[in-house]
Amino acid sequence: MKLFRKLISLDEALKTVLAYAKPAETEIEELGFGDALNRVLAEDVYSPADSPPFDRAAMDGYAIRAEDSFGASPNNPVLLRLIKSQSEKGKESRVEGVEIGDGECFGIQTGMALPNGSNAVVMLEYTKERGSELEIFKPVTPGKNVSFKGEDVKKGEEVLKGGKLLRAHDLGMLASLFKRSVKVYKRAKFGIMSTGDELLNPEEAEPYEGEKRIADVNSYVLAGLTEPIASSYRIGIVRDNYKEIKDTISRSLAKDCDGLLISGGSSVGKRDFIADAVEDSGELVFHGVAIRPGEPTGFGIVNNKPVFILPGYPVAAISAFELLVRPFLFAVHGVKQERKKIFAVARKKIPSAVGRTDFVRVKLFCKENENEYFVEPIRVSGSGILSSMTKSDGFVVIEENKEGVEAGEKVEVIEYY
Amino acid sequence: MKLFRKLISLDEALKTVLAYAKPAETEIEELGFGDALNRVLAEDVYSPADSPPFDRAAMDGYAIRAEDSFGASPNNPVLLRLIKSQSEKGKESRVEGVEIGDGECFGIQTGMALPNGSNAVVMLEYTKERGSELEIFKPVTPGKNVSFKGEDVKKGEEVLKGGKLLRAHDLGMLASLFKRSVKVYKRAKFGIMSTGDELLNPEEAEPYEGEKRIADVNSYVLAGLTEPIASSYRIGIVRDNYKEIKDTISRSLAKDCDGLLISGGSSVGKRDFIADAVEDSGELVFHGVAIRPGEPTGFGIVNNKPVFILPGYPVAAISAFELLVRPFLFAVHGVKQERKKIFAVARKKIPSAVGRTDFVRVKLFCKENENEYFVEPIRVSGSGILSSMTKSDGFVVIEENKEGVEAGEKVEVIEYY
Repeated sequence: MKLFRKLISLDEALKTVLAYAKPAETEIEELGFGDALNRVLAEDVYSPADSPPFDRAAMDGYAIRAEDSFGASPNNPVLLRLIKSQSEKGKESRVEGVEIGDGECFGIQTGMALPNGSNAVVMLEYTKERGSELEIFKPVTPGKNVSFKGEDVKKGEEVLKGGKLLRAHDLGMLASLFKRSVKVYKRAKFGIMSTGDELLNPEEAEPYEGEKRIADVNSYVLAGLTEPIASSYRIGIVRDNYKEIKDTISRSLAKDCDGLLISGGSSVGKRDFIADAVEDSGELVFHGVAIRPGEPTGFGIVNNKPVFILPGYPVAAISAFELLVRPFLFAVHGVKQERKKIFAVARKKIPSAVGRTDFVRVKLFCKENENEYFVEPIRVSGSGILSSMTKSDGFVVIEENKEGVEAGEKVEVIEYY
Repeated sequence: MKLFRKLISLDEALKTVLAYAKPAETEIEELGFGDALNRVLAEDVYSPADSPPFDRAAMDGYAIRAEDSFGASPNNPVLLRLIKSQSEKGKESRVEGVEIGDGECFGIQTGMALPNGSNAVVMLEYTKERGSELEIFKPVTPGKNVSFKGEDVKKGEEVLKGGKLLRAHDLGMLASLFKRSVKVYKRAKFGIMSTGDELLNPEEAEPYEGEKRIADVNSYVLAGLTEPIASSYRIGIVRDNYKEIKDTISRSLAKDCDGLLISGGSSVGKRDFIADAVEDSGELVFHGVAIRPGEPTGFGIVNNKPVFILPGYPVAAISAFELLVRPFLFAVHGVKQERKKIFAVARKKIPSAVGRTDFVRVKLFCKENENEYFVEPIRVSGSGILSSMTKSDGFVVIEENKEGVEAGEKVEVIEYY
């Protein structure tokens, strides 16, 4: 019996959806760098100038000509003429126009530009101001306690690569280069629809004793998983009705949704209105993927926009999201950064069948003073068991050609976002 | 020479700031569960009911009395009376009021409640509808293909623990329990101030050739680092002027800021207006911590609110943020979750001096098919080198009693947020 129109491997499914992830789908916008946190950079950024833009003091002290300090010692200090004292608190501490000549010194703080003529900073600790003069107790060599122009970034150097998810540090780098705006990928907007006669809206319903319907869980979970990378719009619950589903698909895609995640009703049953509605509205590219949980996953194109058909059971929907939708969203948004994994030793055997890819929820363990993680599967089966998600730290993917994981074997754990 | 009023170890500094992190500072608010993504749960959540709330089908097929299928085989199928066909697409698929008697069966989809009287589901694959009757080719035992009531969560069971940062899955759990609102910690609001005559606003300034001033980097970086856990309010640049700084501190804290992060001007120089202003406005608890970079870090209490004095150099400010401010923010917001680290083998020696804690920026390496990370320090010194942050993946903390890390030694890497 043919369960799905086509049952394909995760590799093939992934290759297929990624082929549809045209970066053009997400346009590029220009933002002030201060608004670009957690956005994906859509350009390579090169430094327009040296950073720092001038030689500057790396310590608090006095800018001098290093040669003037040669021979200084605690018992035989060198005496220099103070152009500016360290104690002139109220005074504007700009150095523009200042010129340090032979035998002169200038009170300076860490980060300030070195005045012209000076080539070193003698630290505060090795000096003492005496009226209009400064005693220096230790010699410095030229360049001592100086941060040189271009030491951080050279003019023309690539500082940030397109495809990077911008962190706080990266915004700081953009600020330091006076790069006011930056090109980032627009966040695509995905409509999120739950289908099923058995669903109640948990924000409104008052289930009664003997109620045979359950809460819509998927629209909240899928919206939360989507949010870090794309915008989500919760369409809500649609009944198991071919026409209603088809109409909602076309209405959502005609409006401002760039794609859809539809969950529920995508299993083998005859209630398979979603796949029919997708096929009749555009193209059903595949339906049925050899992953567990998550087999009844499908993908189609309607109005040139991607439509994912996800299982109704929350754990299966999350599995399909992590294995197919997230890579798609990353590709659409130009994310080139790799996700860091955690290597961990399996404490127990994790069984898996050859011929399908398993998404295994796991818990990480690490005893104090140990420098290795151990991992245990939370529960191998039961895609209705949402607590297997909330109790786990991440997941392990067991590839389809692998017959499980032996106890003691090292696995890759991907932490949840 | 006494560089700081008090130079203390990181351990002591951390213990001190955490003692001031009263959870009462952040109040608790009640939110709709759908709005609680990335918020910190301020209550233990117990399930008000069993979940699932009833026995349900774990497969698509037919709900039956298992006993009726005994003896079925492909050549000798059992015949049952169809109460509802699988093909009744348009029909409301509710099961309330349905009662399965001897010899009856009911078409059902995964996730649907089992009708009264039935105790098992026979999979679609092992059946064939013939008019008003169903042929069954394989027997099932009672409970087969059924998800039992309370299988996921039992009534009264703790499902989420206070102190958890709520992920998408957790929202799903709350939805599944019809828990409409949830108590979370309010996000405290931190004012972020950069000080220094040498600073220009990078969103406005047009630096010219020969300009001796630099961009304000810290207010952007510190706001970005604060955002995942607390709200940030960029106060902007304040000049090196005791009165101006003192006034801005009291004005910000009198208004709606729950605390302040002030960077710059906190070094050993006489320009130390911030520490003076904090001391004169309230209490300067400590100033100077044995961390590198980040030594000129201080902490005070003004109007019963926390004020962090952070170094002017961005890398030093980030180091002080990660080592002191982030743990403080986590404590204030009741975060009990531990941050996952990555264990990695040092490729090179990482030098460090005994007597201070080092914050070392590192890059992680992992070759394909290797199941271990290697780590290299980006640059050991130079807190002016912002590119050491943007080029690194995370940091390693070398404790003060440790004389560096040898090549081949395993270290803990903390990935940046």
